[in-house]
Amino acid sequence: MDNLLEKINSPADLKKLSVDQLPQVCTELRSFIIEALSHNPGHFAASLGVVELTVAVHYVFDLPFDKLVWDVGHQAYGHKILTGRRDRFESNRKLGGLSGFPNIFESEYDAFGVGHSSTSVSAALGMAIAAQLKGEKRHVVSIIGDGALTGGEAFEALNNMASANPDMLVILNDNNMAIDHVTGGMSQYLLDITTSSTYNRLRRRVSQALERRGLSGSGRKSFITKFNNSLKNLINRQTNMFEGLNIRYFGPVDGHDVEYLVSILRDLKNIPGPKMLHVVTVKGKGFEPAEVNQTKWHAVSGRFDIVNGEPLDAPTDKPQPPKFQDVFGNTILELARQNDKILGITPAMPSGCSLNIMMKEMPDRCFDVGIAEQHAVTFAAGLAISGYIPFCNIYSTFAQRAYDQIIHDVALQKLHVILCFDRGGLVGQDGPTHHGVFDIAMLLPIPNIIIAAPMDEVELRNMMYTALTVNGPIAIRYPRGRGSIIDWQQPMQTLTIGDGAARQLSDGDGVAVLSVGPLGVRVQKIVSRLKEQGINIMHYDMRFAKPLDTQALATAFAKCKHIITIEDGVRAGGFGSAVMEWASDNGYDNLDFTRLGVPDRFIEHGSVDELHAICGLDEKSIEKVIRDKA
Amino acid sequence: MDNLLEKINSPADLKKLSVDQLPQVCTELRSFIIEALSHNPGHFAASLGVVELTVAVHYVFDLPFDKLVWDVGHQAYGHKILTGRRDRFESNRKLGGLSGFPNIFESEYDAFGVGHSSTSVSAALGMAIAAQLKGEKRHVVSIIGDGALTGGEAFEALNNMASANPDMLVILNDNNMAIDHVTGGMSQYLLDITTSSTYNRLRRRVSQALERRGLSGSGRKSFITKFNNSLKNLINRQTNMFEGLNIRYFGPVDGHDVEYLVSILRDLKNIPGPKMLHVVTVKGKGFEPAEVNQTKWHAVSGRFDIVNGEPLDAPTDKPQPPKFQDVFGNTILELARQNDKILGITPAMPSGCSLNIMMKEMPDRCFDVGIAEQHAVTFAAGLAISGYIPFCNIYSTFAQRAYDQIIHDVALQKLHVILCFDRGGLVGQDGPTHHGVFDIAMLLPIPNIIIAAPMDEVELRNMMYTALTVNGPIAIRYPRGRGSIIDWQQPMQTLTIGDGAARQLSDGDGVAVLSVGPLGVRVQKIVSRLKEQGINIMHYDMRFAKPLDTQALATAFAKCKHIITIEDGVRAGGFGSAVMEWASDNGYDNLDFTRLGVPDRFIEHGSVDELHAICGLDEKSIEKVIRDKA
Repeated sequence: MDNLLEKINSPADLKKLSVDQLPQVCTELRSFIIEALSHNPGHFAASLGVVELTVAVHYVFDLPFDKLVWDVGHQAYGHKILTGRRDRFESNRKLGGLSGFPNIFESEYDAFGVGHSSTSVSAALGMAIAAQLKGEKRHVVSIIGDGALTGGEAFEALNNMASANPDMLVILNDNNMAIDHVTGGMSQYLLDITTSSTYNRLRRRVSQALERRGLSGSGRKSFITKFNNSLKNLINRQTNMFEGLNIRYFGPVDGHDVEYLVSILRDLKNIPGPKMLHVVTVKGKGFEPAEVNQTKWHAVSGRFDIVNGEPLDAPTDKPQPPKFQDVFGNTILELARQNDKILGITPAMPSGCSLNIMMKEMPDRCFDVGIAEQHAVTFAAGLAISGYIPFCNIYSTFAQRAYDQIIHDVALQKLHVILCFDRGGLVGQDGPTHHGVFDIAMLLPIPNIIIAAPMDEVELRNMMYTALTVNGPIAIRYPRGRGSIIDWQQPMQTLTIGDGAARQLSDGDGVAVLSVGPLGVRVQKIVSRLKEQGINIMHYDMRFAKPLDTQALATAFAKCKHIITIEDGVRAGGFGSAVMEWASDNGYDNLDFTRLGVPDRFIEHGSVDELHAICGLDEKSIEKVIRDKA
Repeated sequence: MDNLLEKINSPADLKKLSVDQLPQVCTELRSFIIEALSHNPGHFAASLGVVELTVAVHYVFDLPFDKLVWDVGHQAYGHKILTGRRDRFESNRKLGGLSGFPNIFESEYDAFGVGHSSTSVSAALGMAIAAQLKGEKRHVVSIIGDGALTGGEAFEALNNMASANPDMLVILNDNNMAIDHVTGGMSQYLLDITTSSTYNRLRRRVSQALERRGLSGSGRKSFITKFNNSLKNLINRQTNMFEGLNIRYFGPVDGHDVEYLVSILRDLKNIPGPKMLHVVTVKGKGFEPAEVNQTKWHAVSGRFDIVNGEPLDAPTDKPQPPKFQDVFGNTILELARQNDKILGITPAMPSGCSLNIMMKEMPDRCFDVGIAEQHAVTFAAGLAISGYIPFCNIYSTFAQRAYDQIIHDVALQKLHVILCFDRGGLVGQDGPTHHGVFDIAMLLPIPNIIIAAPMDEVELRNMMYTALTVNGPIAIRYPRGRGSIIDWQQPMQTLTIGDGAARQLSDGDGVAVLSVGPLGVRVQKIVSRLKEQGINIMHYDMRFAKPLDTQALATAFAKCKHIITIEDGVRAGGFGSAVMEWASDNGYDNLDFTRLGVPDRFIEHGSVDELHAICGLDEKSIEKVIRDKA
């Protein structure tokens, strides 16, 4: 059989095929994704789950005139491959290559950039209203997972859809998975609908019956819709929740039957108003290891065998420093064993942040609240005010979602919530939507909050330990990936906060480097090397961006005119600026400051090392800055 | 009849009364609130609407052991009056007096501080889970309005309640109003439930029937619940939306029948698990002018006659400068008449931000999206990417809710969204939950965004006009209240952005004052006065906090050693710090900076003038700083 996929260079080519050729396209697309990912890691299982849906949507709708908005977007590989990016797909997530997410600057087929969750209905509603205002017959489709549906913004948009009443279709891609299993009432509700066997049996029959009688022609749509809905009412004795919001609900349907999907999408295309199609899919569909372990295969991090999924890269024999997330996961468990007030909270990232380590042993003391960062923080506040000590772990970039709750619910009330921001700094291949570079700058203006950034794993442990003793909110932000200390599981120590907090790693005069966070390791290496060359540089690992250790600052400012600050976050309003503010407030007017950090633009995707080099945060660049001042 | 209210100094006193005395308490409480507000302005209609609910909750539950979490909190006056704060109620919203919102530092009866919307279920869930973990038989109640229910965080919490399954009660206070009418599918849904007459008639009968047969004793609760629910199913052929989320739903009930509320709350107290009681109330209940015009009476701003609601303070004859919000409202309409791409968006504040002026003339081009700041911003992004120019108007403090959307959906994609932040700076009596002091600092770290802050009304108009011409996102933040220019409706001009943007209001050497925002007016006055005394101070109205006018900075830095920056936002990471960053990056190492702004602590409530004085931003303090440097 001829390969169909390799002739598809745009959706127009796909449309030339007959419907009964689409299953073959799906098979080929699935193989293409598996093969590509097997040697170039990336998000995996989500794209496999929507292969049929992707093909069906492109077959039925006319992109880019019609608009397709993906939610989160890590499931859009098939979409990229079908829209002229097949040949470049091997560059996926590499520096200068394709983005791992839909990106408006990459292709006109990417109607809206994504990365964070639960935005698609809002954006699509904007597009649908725009089409309505212009009087354009444009179809607008958003595809949102049941995980993303737990995010409040999605509800806000669904609630708004009804009153705006535009022609648009929300496809609910229901696989009962985000990265981990989806939690919450909505998830149970969707499962109830889907597993109601009487209902499903009948629904299918009705649909077939209608087709046989020629009732599925476009003229009869509104009748069929009504009939379908009232049938559901009769069976389930319920109006569907979405219909409660005045959104016409259809489904659930099998998301892996591409021909059926095409027929139902064609039908829906002609039904006006806000509509939802509930599609049931299997995350990782078509690749058995991924179907079996969906969390593990959410994303792949190394090469694998495309038959059995076994990793192709032999694990290294050399002992490695741990991932920061695992230091968090193991340490919170260790602390929780000694203090029964400690609780763990994650918005849908138990495996991503390694809270699953504690969850396994103490399921009652851990809470996966769904993709709901806002709720996670206020919920933590409610626990804290009741005498518990919640560790609320949120990826740095997603914590932007909870900014108001951090200010209004936690900091203003001085509540003892321990915010752990994982994935602080540049995260690499996930790119600009995911870099955790705003965290320090966004927290610094907030009164009452302590901001800690460990240089290494031992410091992370000590900060978590110290966080138990403070009398108010504290944020500990640490990077993605591995640290620098193999023998990290050392007894924990209480750190000083404020004056005396900083760790002087090297003395010198003339030039002082003040680092916060993991780049301190790099600085330490450079400073040691310079020392061997007779150049003495003062270096403080500041540990905390707020409050500052003003003793350390006074010492540095007294001995050094050249002050270099370094952080893996934005320069604008970051730690370096806070240091300058203190200097200015305290009459140090003759210092020469150099603030190293992420420049004032969005940083693309690529390896962390590549991105550090772009930002002048690689070893060579830092060393040059220090030498120039020395 | 003896006055009952004046003997109630704590909920214990209320509990001594018999149920049939409660209507009298409600009448007295209502009169007390009306009387107090008639000479000391504040939020009005919401507290009147929940008088019976407040009395019933305090009668049935045992605060402060049981926990009551108000959502938003401006409806908690009755609660404050019943919990030992009656005598101090005349200090409401005044400096050093009672807060206009529940405040944990003010009373042990205030279980959680509020001000922003949609947090109560999250916080209450934290408390309920805490009680569950401790094995305490503590009742946790949250009271949330149907307006607040449109906020995504409330949905996140309801979704989470089901899986956590604690004993807690959410009381839905449904009056179909936030400040303005509530919009969206949920609102329509609640109305459908409430107005389903068959259902209501039957529901009431059933309840009576059960009572007659003694079936409402506590042992039969679970049976009754089931029966009640299945009855509803039979009548409406629907499972209620909240029941879809696995939350037991009761209601709707008349929220002004205090004896019935007491009986139903007593029943619900003994039913385990997550529950919702849907209470229908009338905002402004018992004060006719407020019932008739609920939006106007949401809050009162001056003294009024307690019989007919007529204002007691004669309107001033002197022409006054307009409110900034009205300059926005009139100007967007003026612009929209000339450019049909202009749209207006507000998250539930059409009258608060004066978008209602445009709404009246162009209803199809204005969108009230509910209390949904996140959605508002992404929705604006969807409109912008479709070629429209949305003005998205959000109170500065509530914009904190949309921080991630501003970064991820708008700035990263360089979309032409015009964010208008009303109520920037210290807002006065609403206090720390509402001060719009973080906006400049939170926006500065974001790439691609322009940050404008007008000194006066004419500048606001020019900035809105100029915003049409930029090629990406722009935020314009302006204060609450009136400006300084009576003759504000002048022809609009395009402002320069970047170099050449700043307006030099005075020349001088030695000292330069760089102001951004309305405090520039105060500076201008001081500088003029000093000029008369022969002291020449350089003063720039910088207009934009980002990008900075570096020409103006270079000029100031060349002529002046002492640089004073001033803004009505936080000092930490604010405009002043951005100026210092630029100075440092460009080799100006010998300047003496003084940054005036809001210090690093939460600022209480009081009049704006009082708070400015506390922050050193009053005329006298500013003058002193300038004189000291001159």
